[in-house]
Amino acid sequence: MHHFISLADVTDLDALIRSGLMAKTNPFADEHLGHHKTIGLLFFNSSLRTRLSTEKAARNLGLNVMTLNVGSDSWGLEMEDGVLMNGDKAEHVREAAAVMGRYCDILAIRAFAGLTDRALDYKEQVMTQFARFAGVPIVNLESATRHPLQSLADCITIEEARTTYPLVPVRPKVVLTWLPHFKPLPQAVANSFSEWMNARAAAGKVEFVITNPEGYDLAPEFVGNARIEHDQNKAFEGADFIYGKNWSSYEHYGQVLTQDPSWAVTMDKMNLTNNGHFMHCLPVRRNLKVSDEVLDSPRSLVIEQAANREWSAQAVLREILLSL
Amino acid sequence: MHHFISLADVTDLDALIRSGLMAKTNPFADEHLGHHKTIGLLFFNSSLRTRLSTEKAARNLGLNVMTLNVGSDSWGLEMEDGVLMNGDKAEHVREAAAVMGRYCDILAIRAFAGLTDRALDYKEQVMTQFARFAGVPIVNLESATRHPLQSLADCITIEEARTTYPLVPVRPKVVLTWLPHFKPLPQAVANSFSEWMNARAAAGKVEFVITNPEGYDLAPEFVGNARIEHDQNKAFEGADFIYGKNWSSYEHYGQVLTQDPSWAVTMDKMNLTNNGHFMHCLPVRRNLKVSDEVLDSPRSLVIEQAANREWSAQAVLREILLSL
Amino acid sequence: MHHFISLADVTDLDALIRSGLMAKTNPFADEHLGHHKTIGLLFFNSSLRTRLSTEKAARNLGLNVMTLNVGSDSWGLEMEDGVLMNGDKAEHVREAAAVMGRYCDILAIRAFAGLTDRALDYKEQVMTQFARFAGVPIVNLESATRHPLQSLADCITIEEARTTYPLVPVRPKVVLTWLPHFKPLPQAVANSFSEWMNARAAAGKVEFVITNPEGYDLAPEFVGNARIEHDQNKAFEGADFIYGKNWSSYEHYGQVLTQDPSWAVTMDKMNLTNNGHFMHCLPVRRNLKVSDEVLDSPRSLVIEQAANREWSAQAVLREILLSL
Repeated sequence: MHHFISLADVTDLDALIRSGLMAKTNPFADEHLGHHKTIGLLFFNSSLRTRLSTEKAARNLGLNVMTLNVGSDSWGLEMEDGVLMNGDKAEHVREAAAVMGRYCDILAIRAFAGLTDRALDYKEQVMTQFARFAGVPIVNLESATRHPLQSLADCITIEEARTTYPLVPVRPKVVLTWLPHFKPLPQAVANSFSEWMNARAAAGKVEFVITNPEGYDLAPEFVGNARIEHDQNKAFEGADFIYGKNWSSYEHYGQVLTQDPSWAVTMDKMNLTNNGHFMHCLPVRRNLKVSDEVLDSPRSLVIEQAANREWSAQAVLREILLSL
Repeated sequence: MHHFISLADVTDLDALIRSGLMAKTNPFADEHLGHHKTIGLLFFNSSLRTRLSTEKAARNLGLNVMTLNVGSDSWGLEMEDGVLMNGDKAEHVREAAAVMGRYCDILAIRAFAGLTDRALDYKEQVMTQFARFAGVPIVNLESATRHPLQSLADCITIEEARTTYPLVPVRPKVVLTWLPHFKPLPQAVANSFSEWMNARAAAGKVEFVITNPEGYDLAPEFVGNARIEHDQNKAFEGADFIYGKNWSSYEHYGQVLTQDPSWAVTMDKMNLTNNGHFMHCLPVRRNLKVSDEVLDSPRSLVIEQAANREWSAQAVLREILLSL
Repeated sequence: MHHFISLADVTDLDALIRSGLMAKTNPFADEHLGHHKTIGLLFFNSSLRTRLSTEKAARNLGLNVMTLNVGSDSWGLEMEDGVLMNGDKAEHVREAAAVMGRYCDILAIRAFAGLTDRALDYKEQVMTQFARFAGVPIVNLESATRHPLQSLADCITIEEARTTYPLVPVRPKVVLTWLPHFKPLPQAVANSFSEWMNARAAAGKVEFVITNPEGYDLAPEFVGNARIEHDQNKAFEGADFIYGKNWSSYEHYGQVLTQDPSWAVTMDKMNLTNNGHFMHCLPVRRNLKVSDEVLDSPRSLVIEQAANREWSAQAVLREILLSL
């Protein structure tokens, strides 16, 4: 693996999931791999899980970690070519990326969607330009349209649950459900989860269904071959994993079309499933999106899922280090 | 030791002080203890001494250190149970603490008092909830009502001075004095110092007196068996250590009742003591709280006291690492 | 070397440049030097290159690195003696420096010019006071009037280019040129570059010329023996290195007297030189100060120059570690 920007960079997903589960069993087995190598973590947006889990994984692999918190405002980076830079952007990505690529062997970057200009967000300019100019592998720590380290952690969590809980079938039914929220949130986590679950479905590993209100269908390239079901209850029937997430509308870009509380996940709804497990990438607003009862029940995998972020990051960084 | 939230977590204070003094002599003797272990430092409030000294102590012990600066505003953490989270708090402490506890072997947290709601501050919600949900030892880096790493550094400093300066008696008189300030400051340092000095007094190691203007008495549980003397000059007579600190009123909670400059510590006042040493936890506003003359004299221990923060943190982390 | 605040702290500049080039060839040769030693990086102003390159160099040398980002506003440090501290400055440099000097073996500090009070800026109070009170070596990460780590990287870059590109003569002509900008920027980089180039010129290593519009002459102590040429085209004739930089006026302190776009560097102007190379310390505003064509041509050394910041820092830290 060179870059890890999207699923397209993964050649063997099964092996990557196994590598994560192995790192969880033996975190320091590959500590020599990162010796005398440096990863730079660049945050245009704030982060808790992603930052800590990636830093931890990097150190497990013996990497030197340098973190740079740049507000999305405080450090305006010009992304377009041929511009007269007489505005608020003091540096061009051509220089910024190239220079950081000289100090770091790997660059990991977080830059959220702006949610105002759909075409711009879906161009994934930050990832694309850094990959173009940095001269070193780029790792996506959540970009405008994707969050692949989360998706890999999700795959690891499902695989782990499949072998831990006797009631989960060999080919579980996974349901991504939209949850209500009053703020416009990016589609990145939902997009990415769909992308990865579609790959798992294509490999015969899961059955994948998306349920969301009308007007909230994800972009066609992310929906892929998944079935969209606008009736949430129907979607939940027989599900083994309920993956909750809010996102703003793709069609009416960045808008909150409804906050319908009936879309929140409660124990009543979980009871429609096949003893299904609840997943969410966190942070989660309790009782707005999911009830306390669900989150505090043994069916919730949210803490294990967040813990698995460490092993997802470690699997990816290990693969990149092996390719350096 | 599991948690280090208050004095109640300390089983052998004498041994802990000795451990700090030993670390000062030989900082790297226990470097193996933290190998492959991680401490997370979580700052809801800014920090200079606490951050640097704790990070340094952790590294002396071979720990991996991950620091998270979360503004008290920027990352609203819901602390109450059963709440519908539709306000400005995006995450519940149940998830935040549990997840960080999965990435870190020890969590150290700073969260100041709000100084508006006394009952809320004195509930020590942040420490209590993190201890409840993190699943790993919690270290108090200054909470709403206590600053025990400072108090331990103070004990180390007094013990060190007792064996360094021939004029300090075996059972020195220690005086905590209120100092003037125009801003409302927390009671944490003063509370904690009282708590620890009361323990030292009970063990026959010091005589302890508190002097402050009327209306500034600390909470009864912190005053304990200490003598409160509202006449500062009288309190200073025969003192071996003057410990200066400003705090806002506990009774009229969070208020500045007076800024009486006559409470500032000057050399004239120090001359009332038994060749007493001056202590302050820093930062200190010169000539507002204490005169240049006192701070720049050999009687001032403030720099050594701050330097001892490293050994105080190291003694505590060592104890926790031994218990893991 | 004890401090590294300005060129005056350097005893053998040739050796320092060679040391930087050797570190570039073999980054980890001196990794034992920093073992069990700590450098503190203190940023009163934000930083990308300086922060990453210094942190990287320190780690190459085996140093423990602790970084403190203090906004120039958020942590008001009183620099004057004898002041009644009843304003917005909560701590005196006497305490802050002394305490940090207890936690760190080396302190590296960035503090920009305020650009309102020339006498104050040129007093270099932050560097002077930290050097006075910290008790450990101070490294200048860009101060009010100087940026010596940049200047050393510039010397390394010129020396490297001299031996890499066959057309560069033994004693190249180096031209520092003012570039247009709409914001008032400090003189630090230009001052420092002049100071170091004057030393190189005195040693017979370069010929040095400064070109800037009327009213933009640097302070006489920095101009030194350099020739000032107000006709940019004339200055460029026969130049081997063009070093671009904007600075605000020294004479009319901190003011932007002109934004004359004809001072920007274009390929036409580069064609006046002796196949000259273009240098700039970055960040650079494309097409405002320099054209894309110049920056994207093989004549631009800006990325290599930024990469050399790592080796400049490493040469300096190595020298300091050897003297501890």
